[in-house]
Amino acid sequence: MTGSPVSEDDLIARFFAPLAGDGGLGLRDDAACVAAPAGSDLVMTVDGLVAGVHFFADDPPDAIARKALRVNLSDLAAKGADPLGFLLTLALPATAPAWLEAFARGLGEDAAQYGCPLLGGDTVKTPGPLTISITAFGAVPTGRMVPRTGARPGDLVAVTGAIGDAALGLLLRTTPVVAWIGSLDETERSYLHERYRLPRPRNGLAEALREHAHAAMDVSDGFVGDLEKMLRVSGAAACVRVEDVPMSPAVQRAITADPALLEAALTGGDDYEILCAVPPERIDALKAAAEAAKIPLAVVGEVVEGGKSNLFTYHGAPASFARRSYSHF
Amino acid sequence: MTGSPVSEDDLIARFFAPLAGDGGLGLRDDAACVAAPAGSDLVMTVDGLVAGVHFFADDPPDAIARKALRVNLSDLAAKGADPLGFLLTLALPATAPAWLEAFARGLGEDAAQYGCPLLGGDTVKTPGPLTISITAFGAVPTGRMVPRTGARPGDLVAVTGAIGDAALGLLLRTTPVVAWIGSLDETERSYLHERYRLPRPRNGLAEALREHAHAAMDVSDGFVGDLEKMLRVSGAAACVRVEDVPMSPAVQRAITADPALLEAALTGGDDYEILCAVPPERIDALKAAAEAAKIPLAVVGEVVEGGKSNLFTYHGAPASFARRSYSHF
Repeated sequence: MTGSPVSEDDLIARFFAPLAGDGGLGLRDDAACVAAPAGSDLVMTVDGLVAGVHFFADDPPDAIARKALRVNLSDLAAKGADPLGFLLTLALPATAPAWLEAFARGLGEDAAQYGCPLLGGDTVKTPGPLTISITAFGAVPTGRMVPRTGARPGDLVAVTGAIGDAALGLLLRTTPVVAWIGSLDETERSYLHERYRLPRPRNGLAEALREHAHAAMDVSDGFVGDLEKMLRVSGAAACVRVEDVPMSPAVQRAITADPALLEAALTGGDDYEILCAVPPERIDALKAAAEAAKIPLAVVGEVVEGGKSNLFTYHGAPASFARRSYSHF
Repeated sequence: MTGSPVSEDDLIARFFAPLAGDGGLGLRDDAACVAAPAGSDLVMTVDGLVAGVHFFADDPPDAIARKALRVNLSDLAAKGADPLGFLLTLALPATAPAWLEAFARGLGEDAAQYGCPLLGGDTVKTPGPLTISITAFGAVPTGRMVPRTGARPGDLVAVTGAIGDAALGLLLRTTPVVAWIGSLDETERSYLHERYRLPRPRNGLAEALREHAHAAMDVSDGFVGDLEKMLRVSGAAACVRVEDVPMSPAVQRAITADPALLEAALTGGDDYEILCAVPPERIDALKAAAEAAKIPLAVVGEVVEGGKSNLFTYHGAPASFARRSYSHF
């Protein structure tokens, strides 16, 4: 971007400094500074997103910004953490000021909505695709982060929201001329598009998860594969009734038109829902908290002893999947 | 990297999980978890580096890793912060396992040397150049981060190490057939190369800076421009004697061969030295601490009232510079 009319300092001052939280020091120092929250553990997560890999370069810039922040907020939610703030690295190809303005606006609106202020960042040029890395951090009371590793035999397996929307939304973009798409109406198609483009992190459930869940993770690489990850590190396995996995009317209609989409829905990425293992005596309390937060929550199976693979049944018959999860690699 | 023999999980397990600090949970959870240090402020910084922009793609992979971490350690040092850990985003083009192994080895060695463990990360594929983002965080006693904004009239301006090595090291790489290079011997040339490739962050001075300095920043975009940034946000100005700015024998010899290199040395980037403003009654204590830490420290001028530009003199005569700092934009 040599010869560009804006310097990095100008760009930061114009687009990003107005978003900075108190600890961000107006983005004019070498580093951000925030008080370490007493009696807390810090929970930190980072996600990188590359244009053409994790989002479409021609997506609306505000949606790209929101997705980059929300995928990190989703990790904090799954860990039961309350957001404290984030740092942003933006590797930019030659970019129009109007694009940056819209990107910063989306980022600022989500930062305000989720109470997760921008605290620092670095903006660099790249000859490659737009690349975004966000490090988000949050706090939990000491020792209370909800781990992946805590699922125990007897726990119920529960999941928020709906699975498969984003996977089918991505298919709509990448293979737009297949028969099942004709079975959806315009509203259903745009719902799926939007669910791919804009995750809805479940931060409203964070406190209840740390109160009630033994284990949790966010479903980002596909329900089947992520379930496997959580149970494996917990040293356990799960029995899951596929017909109980919550799916939106749009996904249900698509699967009716093309049954092979069931596997796409269960193994595709970008759901950003919460998968958790909850002891039976706590499930009603978690359901009540979810209802209060207006977050759907469905019980889909049980945790069993480890040493075996997860078992999926579909209306009583065993079900299996050729692939487990979405991989960018 | 579809069709690559390693999945992202394998890659993390093989190369990066062995480096993870305690709070990194073996890089097997959604997030890292560390105790918030009581009575402290958290200091956080992030830097992005792009192959072909911030380093050469064919640099040794361990040196690329070290530089990516060290530029962040340098920010923590300048703020008086003790490192706690870092998170890494790696956007990788198709990459040989041997490259990743060397990268991880360099990263791990520096993490151990500087007491700054890897706590989490994200590895994604990119069709573009290798892009690295590191978020490092550290701690200072509450309220004791050394700001950029604290320089006051009467303070002395001091700088660590030597200025201009990296700028000339970069010139050696980019314009290797100019006359001045012939005036250097092989040892001097490889010294300059190495100083560009591998910053030496001054973390050994962090505690003394928070004890004694009113303001500090690390010199990353050129001494002249960074001095200007620090004094502007402090609402002050500086008078600097250029002949007192510390320069290595290699840089001095190069300037003797081509006097125009003085400006390149003073305005080029990548020094990663500490620039600070120190009250006169504290300078001896800071010098003693620097000597104990084996870090050279030179007083190069004074802070004066604001409302004017920084004044540079060279053996008594006013000096000025066509450019102020290095900009990748």
